[in-house]
Amino acid sequence: MAESTDAPLPVAITTGEPAGIGPELTLSLAADAALPAASVAVGDPAMLAERATALGLEVTPVVCRPGEPLPAGPGVLPVWPVALRAPCTPGVLDPANAGYVIATLQAAVAACRAGQAAAMTTAPLHKGVIIDGGFSGFTGHTEWLRDACGVHEVVMLLATDRALHASRADGGGADLRVALVTTHLPLREVADAVTAERIQRVARILAHDLRDQFGIAAPRIAVCGLNPHAGEGGHLGREELDVVIPALDALRAEGLDIRGPYPADTLFTPRHLAGVDAVLAMYHDQGLAVLKYAGFGNAANITLGLPLVRTSVDHGTALDLAGKGVASPSSLGVAVALARRLADQRAG
Amino acid sequence: MAESTDAPLPVAITTGEPAGIGPELTLSLAADAALPAASVAVGDPAMLAERATALGLEVTPVVCRPGEPLPAGPGVLPVWPVALRAPCTPGVLDPANAGYVIATLQAAVAACRAGQAAAMTTAPLHKGVIIDGGFSGFTGHTEWLRDACGVHEVVMLLATDRALHASRADGGGADLRVALVTTHLPLREVADAVTAERIQRVARILAHDLRDQFGIAAPRIAVCGLNPHAGEGGHLGREELDVVIPALDALRAEGLDIRGPYPADTLFTPRHLAGVDAVLAMYHDQGLAVLKYAGFGNAANITLGLPLVRTSVDHGTALDLAGKGVASPSSLGVAVALARRLADQRAG
Repeated sequence: MAESTDAPLPVAITTGEPAGIGPELTLSLAADAALPAASVAVGDPAMLAERATALGLEVTPVVCRPGEPLPAGPGVLPVWPVALRAPCTPGVLDPANAGYVIATLQAAVAACRAGQAAAMTTAPLHKGVIIDGGFSGFTGHTEWLRDACGVHEVVMLLATDRALHASRADGGGADLRVALVTTHLPLREVADAVTAERIQRVARILAHDLRDQFGIAAPRIAVCGLNPHAGEGGHLGREELDVVIPALDALRAEGLDIRGPYPADTLFTPRHLAGVDAVLAMYHDQGLAVLKYAGFGNAANITLGLPLVRTSVDHGTALDLAGKGVASPSSLGVAVALARRLADQRAG
Repeated sequence: MAESTDAPLPVAITTGEPAGIGPELTLSLAADAALPAASVAVGDPAMLAERATALGLEVTPVVCRPGEPLPAGPGVLPVWPVALRAPCTPGVLDPANAGYVIATLQAAVAACRAGQAAAMTTAPLHKGVIIDGGFSGFTGHTEWLRDACGVHEVVMLLATDRALHASRADGGGADLRVALVTTHLPLREVADAVTAERIQRVARILAHDLRDQFGIAAPRIAVCGLNPHAGEGGHLGREELDVVIPALDALRAEGLDIRGPYPADTLFTPRHLAGVDAVLAMYHDQGLAVLKYAGFGNAANITLGLPLVRTSVDHGTALDLAGKGVASPSSLGVAVALARRLADQRAG
């Protein structure tokens, strides 16, 4: 019998650190019918069922396998099962479950690469406990995915909620997409890490995936300077003159629509943002403080440069809130909705 | 005859670089009756009159002297005169007028210190042309004022428009006040410049002037970490553990209400901002990108730690717009209104 090609491929949601808020956020979205159709959780079905009961959420996790049709029905949450390695209490980290968290990621990546999932969305994990659990080289979700997919460089892009729905034709004044040249580095290492080669690699991936994933035919990218006032002609640092401007000139020579470098505190104003599709910031707090201010907790993280679509929440495991049913699922909801939209766009 | 003590002391507006937009912004506010009562421009009266005529603004600059009553009437802009050193064309910098710009600052500072002005507001100057004009040690308005007033440390605070009017009792959710531990430094010098001593000096000045200038009895200050995720327990830099946290502990031991360090991209969200009076950011772009995004060009700069009230616009000389009458006077208007309010509060 031929498989139906009408059913969309699912978005796989890795439920993340089991002691954190990831499981209950996923359940909460399912209980509110706020998950897009064809979403599937990746995690321990018994843990999810227990958590739903404890929180009084009317959700039934139903096990299925990658490649099989998804179970459906009121309150049904399809689950691709991965077994916990040790019992889990909300709020209490256990290194014994590090391998469980990694296994959920492996399952989602495998499904994406085998054409059994359209995209993946990751709930938060806890880096420290993964390292303590024996994965000593683990530096983060994004880096793990980069290595798992065998690519050399990925790019972190955050987008606010309205950007997920507004097309460029809408104007969409207040929306933001911000990509980063460097991500999780101590501040004192940033200036040396911002090389012309890295700027060029990141900008090319950003431009490529704004076309490929976001469907923007000729993406317009505005770039922040590294230094305050973009160096003010060399008075506040020479990196703009020596590194950034030559890199951007080279990108323009390749035909990319790259503007800047601009002072970050000038660029993030409506007049300057109106004409661009994304901002490329040089480092974490330069770009993300304003992005998260603008997004009001409704921003999602997209990893560009992977051979699959991956989105993520913009928050952590919130161990202090876990098991209490008080954490907001809005960022996870935005991340899943964005994964769905990007995947559909790619497929369409 | 005794002087009347009813007339409020004026706010002195230094009109800044004569080839920039400062003169026309001042004239534009006067033409729109948008200057608070008891404002006085400091600059060349003939240049101001010419500029008003060229732009078709119905404003008459009328000369008076510090200590004299201000002339009043429809379209009258009181001016404390300082003579240009060379003729000036809008948009064309001339180092010959560097001494003129400095003289306007000297006049305003002298008037403030002599009890002839309540406060000063500075329109933008152009640092490069001041240096080229023979003031080789000039590094900026703020540093010049610090030295002119004989103090050792000043603090740069930016505030959005609504904060100027909203009292804490209003809630004023979306408003921001952001002070900086370091200001105009190349990014690669920031980590070493953030010492415990500097954090403490800046936080004490901030707390003092939030009380003294803003009338906030027990100011609550939230502090950003230096590194992304505030160092994530040492994984992303040790400065929080070695420098920032000990500094904040010491400030708390002095009785100040200091919270943090928080990750910058978590702190600048409504939930965290709601309960604090000001944010202390570690460096320029960490704090000002989000402040200016939130302020939509309606932010003002306040210099704390001076023995006088000084506010400033949050933009530059905009030489490309000068003489065209198209630049928005909103930031200058906010800066003058804030100076007036702070001065009245101090006097009252």
